[in-house]
Amino acid sequence: MTNKDARTPASVQDEKSQEAGKSIGWHKAYVEGTRPDLRVPVRQVHLTNGQSVTLYDTSGPYTDPLVDTDVRRGLPPLRENWIIARGDTEEYAGRPVRPEDDGIKHTSPRGGLRNLDAVFPGRPRQPRRGRDGKAVTQLAYARRGEITPEMEFVALRENVSPEVVREEIAAGRAVLPANVNHPEIEPMIIGKRFLVKVNANIGNSAVTSSIEEEVEKMTWATRWGADTVMDLSTGRNIHTTREWVLRNSPVPIGTVPLYQALEKVDGKAEELTWEIYKDTVIEQAEQGVDYMTVHAGVRLPYVPLTANRKTGIVSRGGSIMAAWCLAHHKESFLYENFEELCEILAAYDVTYSLGDGLRPGSIADANDEAQFAELRTLGELNRIAKRFHVQTMIEGPGHVPMHKIKENIDLQQEICDEAPFYTLGPLTTDVAPAYDHITSGIGAAMIAWWGTAMLCYVTPKEHLGLPNRDDVKTGVITYKIAAHAADLAKGHPGAQEWDDALSDARFEFRWEDQFNLALDPDTAREFHDETLPAEPAKTAHFCSMCGPKFCSMKISQDIRREHGGSRTEIEQGMAQKSKEFAASGNRVYLPIAD
Amino acid sequence: MTNKDARTPASVQDEKSQEAGKSIGWHKAYVEGTRPDLRVPVRQVHLTNGQSVTLYDTSGPYTDPLVDTDVRRGLPPLRENWIIARGDTEEYAGRPVRPEDDGIKHTSPRGGLRNLDAVFPGRPRQPRRGRDGKAVTQLAYARRGEITPEMEFVALRENVSPEVVREEIAAGRAVLPANVNHPEIEPMIIGKRFLVKVNANIGNSAVTSSIEEEVEKMTWATRWGADTVMDLSTGRNIHTTREWVLRNSPVPIGTVPLYQALEKVDGKAEELTWEIYKDTVIEQAEQGVDYMTVHAGVRLPYVPLTANRKTGIVSRGGSIMAAWCLAHHKESFLYENFEELCEILAAYDVTYSLGDGLRPGSIADANDEAQFAELRTLGELNRIAKRFHVQTMIEGPGHVPMHKIKENIDLQQEICDEAPFYTLGPLTTDVAPAYDHITSGIGAAMIAWWGTAMLCYVTPKEHLGLPNRDDVKTGVITYKIAAHAADLAKGHPGAQEWDDALSDARFEFRWEDQFNLALDPDTAREFHDETLPAEPAKTAHFCSMCGPKFCSMKISQDIRREHGGSRTEIEQGMAQKSKEFAASGNRVYLPIAD
Repeated sequence: MTNKDARTPASVQDEKSQEAGKSIGWHKAYVEGTRPDLRVPVRQVHLTNGQSVTLYDTSGPYTDPLVDTDVRRGLPPLRENWIIARGDTEEYAGRPVRPEDDGIKHTSPRGGLRNLDAVFPGRPRQPRRGRDGKAVTQLAYARRGEITPEMEFVALRENVSPEVVREEIAAGRAVLPANVNHPEIEPMIIGKRFLVKVNANIGNSAVTSSIEEEVEKMTWATRWGADTVMDLSTGRNIHTTREWVLRNSPVPIGTVPLYQALEKVDGKAEELTWEIYKDTVIEQAEQGVDYMTVHAGVRLPYVPLTANRKTGIVSRGGSIMAAWCLAHHKESFLYENFEELCEILAAYDVTYSLGDGLRPGSIADANDEAQFAELRTLGELNRIAKRFHVQTMIEGPGHVPMHKIKENIDLQQEICDEAPFYTLGPLTTDVAPAYDHITSGIGAAMIAWWGTAMLCYVTPKEHLGLPNRDDVKTGVITYKIAAHAADLAKGHPGAQEWDDALSDARFEFRWEDQFNLALDPDTAREFHDETLPAEPAKTAHFCSMCGPKFCSMKISQDIRREHGGSRTEIEQGMAQKSKEFAASGNRVYLPIAD
Repeated sequence: MTNKDARTPASVQDEKSQEAGKSIGWHKAYVEGTRPDLRVPVRQVHLTNGQSVTLYDTSGPYTDPLVDTDVRRGLPPLRENWIIARGDTEEYAGRPVRPEDDGIKHTSPRGGLRNLDAVFPGRPRQPRRGRDGKAVTQLAYARRGEITPEMEFVALRENVSPEVVREEIAAGRAVLPANVNHPEIEPMIIGKRFLVKVNANIGNSAVTSSIEEEVEKMTWATRWGADTVMDLSTGRNIHTTREWVLRNSPVPIGTVPLYQALEKVDGKAEELTWEIYKDTVIEQAEQGVDYMTVHAGVRLPYVPLTANRKTGIVSRGGSIMAAWCLAHHKESFLYENFEELCEILAAYDVTYSLGDGLRPGSIADANDEAQFAELRTLGELNRIAKRFHVQTMIEGPGHVPMHKIKENIDLQQEICDEAPFYTLGPLTTDVAPAYDHITSGIGAAMIAWWGTAMLCYVTPKEHLGLPNRDDVKTGVITYKIAAHAADLAKGHPGAQEWDDALSDARFEFRWEDQFNLALDPDTAREFHDETLPAEPAKTAHFCSMCGPKFCSMKISQDIRREHGGSRTEIEQGMAQKSKEFAASGNRVYLPIAD
């Protein structure tokens, strides 16, 4: 897949059009940092009134016509020199890739060891880790007072000072997920003082989907604004799929290593061991996974707390650990070996996403004892992780009615020392399968306003099937709405400029600008054209709602024009103006096309 | 259009299927009141486990296979005997229907007077009004301590006592919109102590649409759960379209009489007069319009307050009145003649929906001086209306960021003596044209939780074009989600039973029950079948998310089965059970289709 073929993001097509002289609405630009290799991508929207608006851009080099991308080669390793320059990591041979990493049995003709190059044809590479088991995390640097290029990058991206970024990371209130083996990413930050982020899940399952589809879903999701992507693959080719996704992803990639570990024991939870799990974590850390969901809070004594629930344990990871605990009648091996896990993650700068394996799966189960017992354990684990300088965020629910949402974020912030909260929705009702992007978008906007740092998207297919390309887009757009609504409500500096630019365009009937500023320009344009397809309608001073005879926006413009700009002028001159207005024929609308 | 033709609601088709012996998921049932002609429709969902769930039903006789509906005849006049029995109304000749009522010029060959029968071919009827100008409103009856059949009807519908209904209406905290000339409706109530209601707008405009389409949109909207429908037609055939809609509508119909009045003066706002407006109100009251939006709060001194706004006046009614005030430099004729208007509305039991003509049209303009100045006037008008026993609700915004939403409902409740609030969204951001059902669904859910009684839907076409059939459905479903999420958050008695029933079905893999309980069964089924189309998948104990090898729901079921029902049993027996579990082969999943 190069950016010449059919799956190229639409925006690149636009760029090509621009080169061909055709007017388009935006182009990729870069904000320069203090060093030549620090260039922060932005989306520059050009308005027809000559102004421009700069928007946050997650789409990666795919939308830069000057970068020749090729999924077989992978993205350029933007951060490689920054990592090497720190001098605290070393390359090493790495764990050999085994057939079972891809879900292939030893007896298969495809069996036998393979090296990384066989998995991915791109540039040869060896994995990297902290020398002498040292923590090479952004948290460790931030605590030492160092502002890394990654921190400067996100400061430019968020339009804040690098020192604010460093402080928030050092305090554990924000994470900058950036595995030393994933140099391709454009750094981003997750924390309540920054823009609310959105994660999109992809992943093949035992039922359907292929490697190409997953890479395509990843670029598609980031094209529409996904800030991170989780690869939740559970079927065949997990290792290889992940390698292709990582090498081509401009955003941090998250995983749930337990899913792959379970594949290695053929789906038998009770056969899981700490050794198999640990080996899987190292396998994924060497590939470059930036954050990992770890369900270490699902402890043996909490399992019975779920017995009287309406929907039991709905988290896949949570139920795997519960099954293991029950089968062995033993404390969770993740909980028992948590410190060793911290040492591993610290050596690659893998960020913890402490999973909420006991999250509620229905309105009836929200905020129950099982859920909050686990949350308290996550608070405990967060403190342990911080001792090892591992960046940590905390996952949250799930299904929660509106009046119980705030308690979730308030408790989480208190118990987990303000570590970033990363929630799935929450879904505010259970009665609308096929619309759970909306039932959850409502809860997501609210919990983000109250402090959640990242939202895990939900697609229309939730509870029903695997999302296709359209579902991924709908999920991302819905969650970008929730995130931006929260940015506005939090008074994030600059957030409202975007709304203001679109509202100005609306008031002034600049239709093309409205489309280009929209979260989804294509659909906005398509909907407009459905009712008023003619090209002149795009410059007409009315729309299909009221028609040309009377338009409320038009009247407001007339009021402003007739009566001057300021209120005082208006009040003083109103009687006089009124006479002139009447004398001029009381034209309150322009019958452009009657 | 009879219920045999192609535009029949899907549910009736289902009923026909049932008659043919095919199993379906629900049927129309009735809850009997204290008199034989008082039968409240409900939707009875039959579950595969033998239980059933009763849901509120807005779809009218169209989904009753025993009622033979025909749009040329109209619906049976359910309330006619109740109205006659009260003995306080009289039939009279009524205002003649004039060509200009349908936007036809006097000089047109179609000119000349017509009678009601020419407008609508159904049963002949004369308009009815209160004798001797008496108030024949549900408010007047409630204040006198009378429980009308309409009140008993809504009490059964809401599962509360009739006395609660009477009290809420008497206190002005709820309205029961029911024009004496619209006997076809199934009574419903709008108030914060009751289920949150949803309004869907229909209406042709100068640009597009026909009479048949509008009737079809109305039945389609109520099929998916619209509690009231507003006919906002602005083009030709306004009168006739409205007549057809009213005669076929099982839900209250609202209008904005100012739109039609403006048509009568050929779109020239300054040519409007109190006489033309009043004549239009009487015309519509005689037809049976149940509630009317009246922008009497747009006063002359408030117009300059909008001059420095980003998007000025965005309400069509608001801008018409602002233009009139400016043209004449006079106080609004609606404000000046409000008491006379009250007398008219009281004689038909038309409910006021006091319009927010100065609502904000962008995030930037939310909660500004213009908006709240108008709100204070609406509070004043509400008190006047109550003196005349006119039922009254208050309209609200619009575009409001999340952190400014609560102030809207709190102020409205305070200023307007807890009169029902009826809000449009609010939209929580301006950046997502084509997704404004979602930007506004977020705000709608929140403001309804905090006390808004009815939500005016927004479709994906908002700001872009006229909604088609699919847009109407998407808008209604999105707003039913917002309304139900609010019912849950308010702890409305019985609201959670629906969620619980669906969650139980989900936990027990009863796929057909999940579909049938869903707000939109068709789309839920379609989405499921997209990934796992085979019939056996509808009874399989897994879904496409995890596949058959490992299913979290399955594990929870195993935990419950293996370890007994109660937590104490589980804690006591866990060690023992654990051994048995291991001995039994640790089966934590059933490989149904590997």
